[in-house]
Amino acid sequence: MVVANNPHLNACAIVGIGATEFSRNSGRSELTLATEAAVAAAADAGVAVSDIDGMVRCDMDFVQHNALADALGLPNLSFWSDVGVGGGAPAAMVGQAVAAIMSGQASTVLVYRALNGRTGARYGQGDGQGAEGGGGGSYLEYFSPYGLNTPGQMWSMLARRHMVEFGTTSEHLAHIAMTCRENANANPLAQMHGRPMTMDDYLASPMLTDPLRLFDYCIETDGAVALIVTSLERARDLPQPPAVIRAVAQGVQAGMQPGIAFPSMMRASLTTMPSAPTAARLYARAGMTPADIDVAQFYDCFTMTALIQLEDYGFCAKGEGGPFAASGAIRRGGSIPINTAGGHLSEGYLHGVNHILEGVRQIRGTSTSQVEGAEVSLVTSGLPIATSAMILTKGVL
Amino acid sequence: MVVANNPHLNACAIVGIGATEFSRNSGRSELTLATEAAVAAAADAGVAVSDIDGMVRCDMDFVQHNALADALGLPNLSFWSDVGVGGGAPAAMVGQAVAAIMSGQASTVLVYRALNGRTGARYGQGDGQGAEGGGGGSYLEYFSPYGLNTPGQMWSMLARRHMVEFGTTSEHLAHIAMTCRENANANPLAQMHGRPMTMDDYLASPMLTDPLRLFDYCIETDGAVALIVTSLERARDLPQPPAVIRAVAQGVQAGMQPGIAFPSMMRASLTTMPSAPTAARLYARAGMTPADIDVAQFYDCFTMTALIQLEDYGFCAKGEGGPFAASGAIRRGGSIPINTAGGHLSEGYLHGVNHILEGVRQIRGTSTSQVEGAEVSLVTSGLPIATSAMILTKGVL
Repeated sequence: MVVANNPHLNACAIVGIGATEFSRNSGRSELTLATEAAVAAAADAGVAVSDIDGMVRCDMDFVQHNALADALGLPNLSFWSDVGVGGGAPAAMVGQAVAAIMSGQASTVLVYRALNGRTGARYGQGDGQGAEGGGGGSYLEYFSPYGLNTPGQMWSMLARRHMVEFGTTSEHLAHIAMTCRENANANPLAQMHGRPMTMDDYLASPMLTDPLRLFDYCIETDGAVALIVTSLERARDLPQPPAVIRAVAQGVQAGMQPGIAFPSMMRASLTTMPSAPTAARLYARAGMTPADIDVAQFYDCFTMTALIQLEDYGFCAKGEGGPFAASGAIRRGGSIPINTAGGHLSEGYLHGVNHILEGVRQIRGTSTSQVEGAEVSLVTSGLPIATSAMILTKGVL
Repeated sequence: MVVANNPHLNACAIVGIGATEFSRNSGRSELTLATEAAVAAAADAGVAVSDIDGMVRCDMDFVQHNALADALGLPNLSFWSDVGVGGGAPAAMVGQAVAAIMSGQASTVLVYRALNGRTGARYGQGDGQGAEGGGGGSYLEYFSPYGLNTPGQMWSMLARRHMVEFGTTSEHLAHIAMTCRENANANPLAQMHGRPMTMDDYLASPMLTDPLRLFDYCIETDGAVALIVTSLERARDLPQPPAVIRAVAQGVQAGMQPGIAFPSMMRASLTTMPSAPTAARLYARAGMTPADIDVAQFYDCFTMTALIQLEDYGFCAKGEGGPFAASGAIRRGGSIPINTAGGHLSEGYLHGVNHILEGVRQIRGTSTSQVEGAEVSLVTSGLPIATSAMILTKGVL
């Protein structure tokens, strides 16, 4: 393993994870959800809530740091920050925690995401996104008049292009959805637990944004998740087996455009994502290759998002994501099991952060679709605009 | 000098600064302004724009990272993040850059702030702030129905309380405003250059939010500023004398409340700010005391903000900020010259980030109100909600 210059190699670990239930109607505010998840994460880590001295927030979270600090009764935070854009942020949020700890700005950092994604502000409605582009100009103003507004619409164009260029089919996409559903059916806490999905079910689901069907879309979730990051040195004194943070990386792609609007059509290629440069950076920092990865949680706002990342993270060649998914390689027992808690497609959509919790469970050996002997766990956060990713290991490898 | 555990001590430096003109009508977008300032900062640093691989943004900036990266032609950012809240962020933004560099996530980090504060979204209008509290709940909903909306209104209550408790007077506040104006008159680039202010001028200015007059308010500015942070090791090969980052700190205060809304009335004390815990943390990390500081740039959205910080940062006892300001101690030649470019009150309001540029100029010896032999430069970012601060030094002390 040849590690590129990576000062954060094995410096920190995820030592606690916590979550609320994932539902379609939480019946309480995002702040209450975030508070519950944070308390659970601290308890899991074996640290006092009052030990938390740093906080990292996703830029799209409705819960501000100081609201949560106030709810948790933290009088003396020494570090807080945000990362975006949205679902591209989660692994970078952990990267922020690592950076805060290494630079001495905090010792015990809470990373959280709370979302009433069903009963609160529902994503994918196409409204309000323009404002995110702000004074920098949102390209959405060029798309919206033509009705091109929502992530589903944008991703449909990426999916269609992948089909045109590489012969990818709906059946290929179905295998991503069915794998996630299969894992959700092993996970009693998944929203789609108890609802098996067959190929016929998938093909019968309503076409929403051709070629993407309902079952190509992630689900809408009310809930919150949280995790605790600390130094590896301190992690060794805590009760849980530490998920050692071997490397984190963020990445963008030349020609990306302003804001949260998805101007993915304005890039040189529609069939790759910033996950390609992110992957290269991550593997260099980790001194690893795809062959070293035992299990992966891919950001899956849509089936197509996960499919493209199978290619961008090097598990198959560009264009071969469809047949690769259909081969069974991504199922439990396959060469690279993915989204073992059910993913955004079937566990819940906590905007990438629940994937980190599952990445940690795989290291601990407590997943409901545990990959036997898993020692290296990949977690990605991905959008066509910007991505991040991390590699967690069982102990220091 | 006894330095508390501070891994970032002298690890990085500010090596480049850049700014547009400060005006009341820039005639161009925030993105254009940010781009100009970033290019100027890179040129000043002696680095290629394409060397920039990290970016830190204030959470309230209208310019998104990827908009600016696109404008600058940066194809491969490896780090980006946000910090808030608003004017409490700037020193923390530099802290982010330091953390990114130390953890190996970036090597050359751009910190920027662009604002059409006069011709664009004007602050202090009392509209739109509620949204920031989001699902966490904004306390503004309890204040707004009574007409308590704007920062000026909030600060008037802090100022009145300080007057009641400590006998602070309008004339005391005037000395903060006049000191800033005096410095602006030495700085040809300050918005208020060429407009001297006497005590009579101050007292004749309109009472806006009793006891705060027009001249207690910062000015509205269109403009942008940017700076480049890199490792000290690399800084030594660059043309400018590096402003070594000795310590950064963020801080909040028990009982702070959600979001950007200013619920400063709901705290135990109205006459101190989170600058008190921030100062304690900063001095411990730097191994310094107020006596070591040669020159300070205090966040001055209002005169009262700077006055409280004179106390919280230990330059005088609590309650004595008024007489201390009136003594001349804060003027050039005094014991602790402040806001030597003119401050937000008279140079321009770039939301705290222009203060960092002036802090660097004092280290370089290029301020228009240069403190002779200045070796230690304090820069603060401050709100009643959350603050940050940093100490820069001339070389490694």
